[in-house]
Amino acid sequence: MQFDRISFLKQLKARKERIEQHLLGCLPVDAYPPVIHQAMHYAVSNGGKRLRPIMTAEGAVLAGMPDQLVMTTACAIEMIHCYSLVHDDLPAMDDDDLRRGKPTCHIVFGEANAILTGDALLTRAFELMAANAAEPGIDPGNAVRAIREVAAAIGSSGMIGGQVLDLQWVGQQIELKDLQCLHLLKTGALFQAALRAGAILAGMDEERLKALDDYARHFGLAFQITDDILDVNGNEELIGKPVGSDQKNQKTTYVSLFGLEAAHDLARQSAEQCLQALAGFGREADFLRNLVCFILQRDN
Amino acid sequence: MQFDRISFLKQLKARKERIEQHLLGCLPVDAYPPVIHQAMHYAVSNGGKRLRPIMTAEGAVLAGMPDQLVMTTACAIEMIHCYSLVHDDLPAMDDDDLRRGKPTCHIVFGEANAILTGDALLTRAFELMAANAAEPGIDPGNAVRAIREVAAAIGSSGMIGGQVLDLQWVGQQIELKDLQCLHLLKTGALFQAALRAGAILAGMDEERLKALDDYARHFGLAFQITDDILDVNGNEELIGKPVGSDQKNQKTTYVSLFGLEAAHDLARQSAEQCLQALAGFGREADFLRNLVCFILQRDN
Repeated sequence: MQFDRISFLKQLKARKERIEQHLLGCLPVDAYPPVIHQAMHYAVSNGGKRLRPIMTAEGAVLAGMPDQLVMTTACAIEMIHCYSLVHDDLPAMDDDDLRRGKPTCHIVFGEANAILTGDALLTRAFELMAANAAEPGIDPGNAVRAIREVAAAIGSSGMIGGQVLDLQWVGQQIELKDLQCLHLLKTGALFQAALRAGAILAGMDEERLKALDDYARHFGLAFQITDDILDVNGNEELIGKPVGSDQKNQKTTYVSLFGLEAAHDLARQSAEQCLQALAGFGREADFLRNLVCFILQRDN
Repeated sequence: MQFDRISFLKQLKARKERIEQHLLGCLPVDAYPPVIHQAMHYAVSNGGKRLRPIMTAEGAVLAGMPDQLVMTTACAIEMIHCYSLVHDDLPAMDDDDLRRGKPTCHIVFGEANAILTGDALLTRAFELMAANAAEPGIDPGNAVRAIREVAAAIGSSGMIGGQVLDLQWVGQQIELKDLQCLHLLKTGALFQAALRAGAILAGMDEERLKALDDYARHFGLAFQITDDILDVNGNEELIGKPVGSDQKNQKTTYVSLFGLEAAHDLARQSAEQCLQALAGFGREADFLRNLVCFILQRDN
């Protein structure tokens, strides 16, 4: 399969626009109290790539269901991602003032409101996943299973656990296996749950679900490694340099552990494993295949 | 109906112990990373009265289902209550160092871990509610409805909205209608959702659900007014004194608005309305009736 970047970017843009259209419809605009709803709206309107909800939609399509029927769950997944960013940016956590060039939620709305905004987005996500069960053709048992799996993936032994480790290990040199565990929890678990949730709602069989797990796990890894590579562009002094006491807030990355070239190789290996995981699928999985090629070439 | 306090306290204690036994079983002890699971355990082991999960159990019993079948959802409701306390206590919120005489979660585990502990308890609550659908005799459609209603009750237009208003109005004198709105959201919504969740899982009809709504709303009010009354014990200078600029962190309460005697009267009126709401139920609702009498006499 040849990767046609121009054509793929058009497909990606169309999917992103559909998600964003639905996403704004999932957030009440005029609700009371105003400030929390403005802050929720601000937190989801941050120009993200919307990869996770796009995966949920693809999961359904791969199981033969129109993605419109899982769009509410897709938006819930994006809200979970946005909540995690709002809380990660807080002064007590990573203390970031900017995200994608815009002031972070706590800078605009204050720290208390930012904590509550994250809480509210997480809560709204579960409300939406439960609401998705009302779509025609969705089995309530599958809806319950999707909720349960997403909750497990983003909980204390999943995404939140990853954030705990991330904070714990700031300024420490960690080993490859710890770095992989950290990213599997912090980034991989949500990608995996996002893809599975759409597929489960559409009634996919266990064998194919397992293939999607493999894809998502390796995709999360490729995504994280390329993220690390992007981070050192303009910060070349970090390459191959161990995390030391002179760089207090620095985190161990694939690039700091192995250098830039080896990190590129690792990303390519993960991408290769993504493609292998999809071997049992036909042309209907081409979008997911292309997505991996796209991630290898990403520039933001 | 005569209120027999001694006999009721025994019933309450037995119910509380059953909830706490199940609650600890709902939290993994040895899971990784250790610190977040220790903090979650600490946050739920705070000696609360467990009134909300007890209500969930009663909701099921009123609909003719053994409460064992909704115990997981009852524990989820208590985790939601505990998450809200952990986040409310944070430095950016009410900044409390002690809760029920013990150091608050952020004092023991640090601010970042406390934020994540709240997030994790909320997330685990939804995982448990979804898991409850696997109990025999629970209809997955009812499970989805319970999840949806609980999420709506504790979201940006419910409990979280109440906390937003609470923070917004600190140090301001507010009117009765605003105070009622605040408590309906901050306290009432979770009581209502707790009672409804058990009843919905057990398949209660709409008319009786509506009666439980009335009960829970007035119960929340009586609970809040008696809370305000307890708060002024030992702080008699607050009674009937408007919130002014010299009392910066003070909040408007029923006692500050109306004085102690009128607050007692309001609590009694709310209790009376609780009993009226249960008029269509028989002896099976005696526990809920007694609970109202108990709240009027509460000393903590």
